[in-house]
Amino acid sequence: MKKHKVLFLPYNKEINVEDGGNLIRAAMEAGVHINASCGGEGLCGKCRVVIERGSVEGGITEKLSGEDLEKGIRQACLASVKQDVTVRIPVESTVDPDVLNKQSTPRYTARIRQINLEELKERGLFVPPVEKKYLELPEPTLQDNLPDVTRLVSYLKLKHNEHRLEVDLSVIRKIPDLLRKDDFRITATLARPVHEGGKTRIINIQSGDTTDLNYAIAMDVGTTTIFGQLIDLKTGKTLAQHGDFNGQISYGEDVISRIVYSAKPGGLEKLHSIVIKTINGVIRRIIRDAGIDPDEISTITLAGNSTMTQLMLKVDPCHIRLSPYVPAATLYPPIKAVEIGMDLGDHVTALVYPAVSSYVGGDIVAGVMGSGMYRAEELILYMDIGTNAEIVVGNKDWLACAACSAGPAFEGGGIKNGMRAAKGAIEDFSMDPVTLEPMNMTIGNVRPKGICGSGLITIVAMMLEMGVINNLGKYDRDLYTPRIREVDGVYEYVLAWAKETQIGRDISLTEPDIDNLIRAKGAMYSGYMTLFEEVGIGVKDIDRIILAGGFGSYVDLEKAMIIGLLPEVDPDKVTFIGNGSLMGAKMSSLTNRIRKDVVEVTRKMTNFELSETASYMDNYVAALFLPHTNIDQFPKLKARLEERKAVLYTDELKKK
Amino acid sequence: MKKHKVLFLPYNKEINVEDGGNLIRAAMEAGVHINASCGGEGLCGKCRVVIERGSVEGGITEKLSGEDLEKGIRQACLASVKQDVTVRIPVESTVDPDVLNKQSTPRYTARIRQINLEELKERGLFVPPVEKKYLELPEPTLQDNLPDVTRLVSYLKLKHNEHRLEVDLSVIRKIPDLLRKDDFRITATLARPVHEGGKTRIINIQSGDTTDLNYAIAMDVGTTTIFGQLIDLKTGKTLAQHGDFNGQISYGEDVISRIVYSAKPGGLEKLHSIVIKTINGVIRRIIRDAGIDPDEISTITLAGNSTMTQLMLKVDPCHIRLSPYVPAATLYPPIKAVEIGMDLGDHVTALVYPAVSSYVGGDIVAGVMGSGMYRAEELILYMDIGTNAEIVVGNKDWLACAACSAGPAFEGGGIKNGMRAAKGAIEDFSMDPVTLEPMNMTIGNVRPKGICGSGLITIVAMMLEMGVINNLGKYDRDLYTPRIREVDGVYEYVLAWAKETQIGRDISLTEPDIDNLIRAKGAMYSGYMTLFEEVGIGVKDIDRIILAGGFGSYVDLEKAMIIGLLPEVDPDKVTFIGNGSLMGAKMSSLTNRIRKDVVEVTRKMTNFELSETASYMDNYVAALFLPHTNIDQFPKLKARLEERKAVLYTDELKKK
Repeated sequence: MKKHKVLFLPYNKEINVEDGGNLIRAAMEAGVHINASCGGEGLCGKCRVVIERGSVEGGITEKLSGEDLEKGIRQACLASVKQDVTVRIPVESTVDPDVLNKQSTPRYTARIRQINLEELKERGLFVPPVEKKYLELPEPTLQDNLPDVTRLVSYLKLKHNEHRLEVDLSVIRKIPDLLRKDDFRITATLARPVHEGGKTRIINIQSGDTTDLNYAIAMDVGTTTIFGQLIDLKTGKTLAQHGDFNGQISYGEDVISRIVYSAKPGGLEKLHSIVIKTINGVIRRIIRDAGIDPDEISTITLAGNSTMTQLMLKVDPCHIRLSPYVPAATLYPPIKAVEIGMDLGDHVTALVYPAVSSYVGGDIVAGVMGSGMYRAEELILYMDIGTNAEIVVGNKDWLACAACSAGPAFEGGGIKNGMRAAKGAIEDFSMDPVTLEPMNMTIGNVRPKGICGSGLITIVAMMLEMGVINNLGKYDRDLYTPRIREVDGVYEYVLAWAKETQIGRDISLTEPDIDNLIRAKGAMYSGYMTLFEEVGIGVKDIDRIILAGGFGSYVDLEKAMIIGLLPEVDPDKVTFIGNGSLMGAKMSSLTNRIRKDVVEVTRKMTNFELSETASYMDNYVAALFLPHTNIDQFPKLKARLEERKAVLYTDELKKK
Repeated sequence: MKKHKVLFLPYNKEINVEDGGNLIRAAMEAGVHINASCGGEGLCGKCRVVIERGSVEGGITEKLSGEDLEKGIRQACLASVKQDVTVRIPVESTVDPDVLNKQSTPRYTARIRQINLEELKERGLFVPPVEKKYLELPEPTLQDNLPDVTRLVSYLKLKHNEHRLEVDLSVIRKIPDLLRKDDFRITATLARPVHEGGKTRIINIQSGDTTDLNYAIAMDVGTTTIFGQLIDLKTGKTLAQHGDFNGQISYGEDVISRIVYSAKPGGLEKLHSIVIKTINGVIRRIIRDAGIDPDEISTITLAGNSTMTQLMLKVDPCHIRLSPYVPAATLYPPIKAVEIGMDLGDHVTALVYPAVSSYVGGDIVAGVMGSGMYRAEELILYMDIGTNAEIVVGNKDWLACAACSAGPAFEGGGIKNGMRAAKGAIEDFSMDPVTLEPMNMTIGNVRPKGICGSGLITIVAMMLEMGVINNLGKYDRDLYTPRIREVDGVYEYVLAWAKETQIGRDISLTEPDIDNLIRAKGAMYSGYMTLFEEVGIGVKDIDRIILAGGFGSYVDLEKAMIIGLLPEVDPDKVTFIGNGSLMGAKMSSLTNRIRKDVVEVTRKMTNFELSETASYMDNYVAALFLPHTNIDQFPKLKARLEERKAVLYTDELKKK
């Protein structure tokens, strides 16, 4: 796509923006602050900028006078970049340019890594677990009256070199009629064994040549959300994707409350049927969106945490919750999709990702497989950040994993104005170093409704760098701005005034909110540091960090390091794979080899029960500071904070 | 059991009889004729005998006067042998003793062969396809929190050296609760793979030690009758057996009419559900009779002909009937018993015997396996005689098979007074060489209702030897006896007068009845002779004949040779295995090795389509004589008939 250069003055920061890109987003991306509290809906009218060279599309509202317009003033949040342009942000002339240039680190999100189909093909690994083979069989005669199945099997051997075949009863039931429907022209669907030496199963037959129509479904069965992808096994491409909230949410937000509910009479059956209902809804939707014949779906691969997996398979999860935290199983046999209630053909096999333990589930294993971590030479830290966070460290030789409960802060839970990453959530933020005015960016560019996890991290990190909060997460009592106030003895910063929000109330960030975030990031930090200690490595040994989970996509890496959530490493070492669970499920749909490797990998993954590891609590307590009790663990931040202190720009705002 | 000697005078024939044995049956067994037309119910009063030494129990009726009783006269059909005894049969004094001694060959039924459990155990083959293993598992701790399934699998490896295990979803569903029910004491049911290198499946778990309770069902799914056995897998013993008529009978007597019905709308589903209903009835009955807990049944093995197998599995059988006679499959995968509607636990696997072709089905393969024919060094002819007769010839090195349609005569079909082998059927017969009076023995010793297959053979053979019929099966028109008469142009012999029967009508054998039998035996004879020619052997090469089928148990071997149904061989070479299909199913329940071998055996069994073999019709036409156009093929009979001619005892009965 065409890109345009945008130069922001007086900061002299330049950034490449895609054609039609939003101007205020471009500023945020470049680390340039523009006051904006309405989330980009054009309501507050604060984001006035001057177009000095070139022009933008839009950005004209009734808040701007004719004179303004003549001067080149536009509202950045409503302006689109269609050519190279120079934009000046109006700032108070008295401000020291040094301050301006240190106002923020540029936005730095992780590089997104996806499945490399071409590489798979080159390595000869694009071999899906189900394949179709077309045959034109000779018609039987008295001299050659082989049974129908024997005829099929013999010619699969003869024409396609297929050996060790076995056949499902459903195929035997279909074959007499089907063979004679199109003059013994037939397509057989073959399900590959996990292990060499295993048998290939003929799971379906169709008349004529349908080899071009072969689809798989990959699905991430999450506690909150269920995502499905419809994959064309001929090309490897994803034809449709859809996510929906897990219907079980009304029975509890987290896995623990689901487990509790499942112990009630009929509870397990209820939660099982509800998650299957959601799954079936997603299946229907992606089938419709892809516009394919559902009978052409050959396989479904599902990944989920241990509790979700057990509920999906109607296996009582109660011992997951009780010490010593024992799941029923970690390895599941191939299951007929219809057997667990899925609206799919009776030939479809459901492949369920194996787990490691009660709290390191199939979703994480899928991420380890899908991201290729299990084949890596370099040492990798894999993190799926969320209420239940999972951490894996290792490479092709060894893997160690652990789970920790970070609490719901990363998903907006336990935060006064917290919310999930949905439309209206403040997901990005910047602060004017002089006026402490906010720049709120919301999902969907609408008036804010609340703050989501990635927004929370950015806000807190920004405030810490600005000196607005101290390393305990407390607001500087001496700063003067109407946005920092005390309400019923609780200090807070108002991100958006009631009239600028969708909720008709001020949206603010309170000190208890910050406390919750500190505890959450402390749990994460302590998790991987404890794991590092257990396996005898340090942050410096980590060659690469892989972030997974819905959360990771919007997190500004530098900000996450500033608050001490991520270890301080070169941001280039961090990649983001999005929904690792879904990625792994897709990978398994594309290459059967994964199914073989995964059994080995789960055996290799040594699980550490952090709650039983003595040093975990020490590490946790030490991490209850911003970024950490021992700032030396964050040398770059330490240097930056010291440099900042010298400037003391906030002095001008000190009360009195 | 205690035995007593019974000496029959004036024939001077002695026989050993079990304590309490019936006297007239003992005479029949010894080849001694006693007039008796009421089937042994005591009604006709003809079977008067004189007890000359010792005494019998019973045999006293109102038909005997006080004087009779004093003379030692008893009715043989109601007398039981309780000590050594000498019995005189009253005969006309004018009869030449030579005639008396040649009146009949002694009754000679085949030796019954059954599964030799001890031999199986000695050969190390008593390894059922499902076994139970008991374990006392350590309870999980925080240091040892293996998943439940992993714990089970690990300790099966450790304590019982079980490797390559896989687990069913149903077991995963049960394990969390079940492990904790009896302090981690558990019994696992293991289903063995067919092939070495395959996986052993854990199909069930039970709390505590239930290894003593492990049962299998073996079942013969016949066109007419369904037999089931309940087998104790701990001891190998059969605890209960039951047979019932296949409910499909009302939809057609033979496989062809069933196939025709199955092609009607809903016909396949109907016949499927009906046969399953019969199967479930038999299952319920043998469970009740054995007094076991149905949950302890681990496996069911079923054998049936190709049509019955396909109907049972709901696989359209229509192409079995149409040239080129192609079955849907001959090899079936293991199937969940519940999947085809059986009233058995959801862990129970149904193993279905493979077939060779449309007309050499799993029942015959089961017989070949169960009888051990496939392991034999000697050359064996295996025959399952019935409407659809199957023939196998060969040994451990090669096997050739064929099927032929003999028609229903052997089962009493197409015979004026024919009936199945049920209570009241004349199953054995002898004829007074002088008076031509009959000695009818019926099943159940009740008044006759009709003639069953084995009775028919004996009657026709006896009449041929007596010269009552010629080698075309026509009655000698010159004989004088009221029992031979012409009714509406058809000659017949009256076996029992209306007043002596249950049906209130005369029971007779007509010339068309004899024609039907000749055609049936001609088809059988031609079947094996054609097969012999195809593989290049002769009758003299046969080391052993195995007869299978309900039919074989009562057939007098010498009689079957006289009419040319069996080749003339030493009767000692003939063994009878009863229901070969059931025997094979039982054998598979006892030794998993059979399942491995059977695949090889079905591959080895070369099928000959007799209807497509030119010489079959020539052989058939040549066999439409008693015993055969070429009497030299029956040298012993030829000698006997010639000897008999010299006596000419029937001359006295010649008319005029």
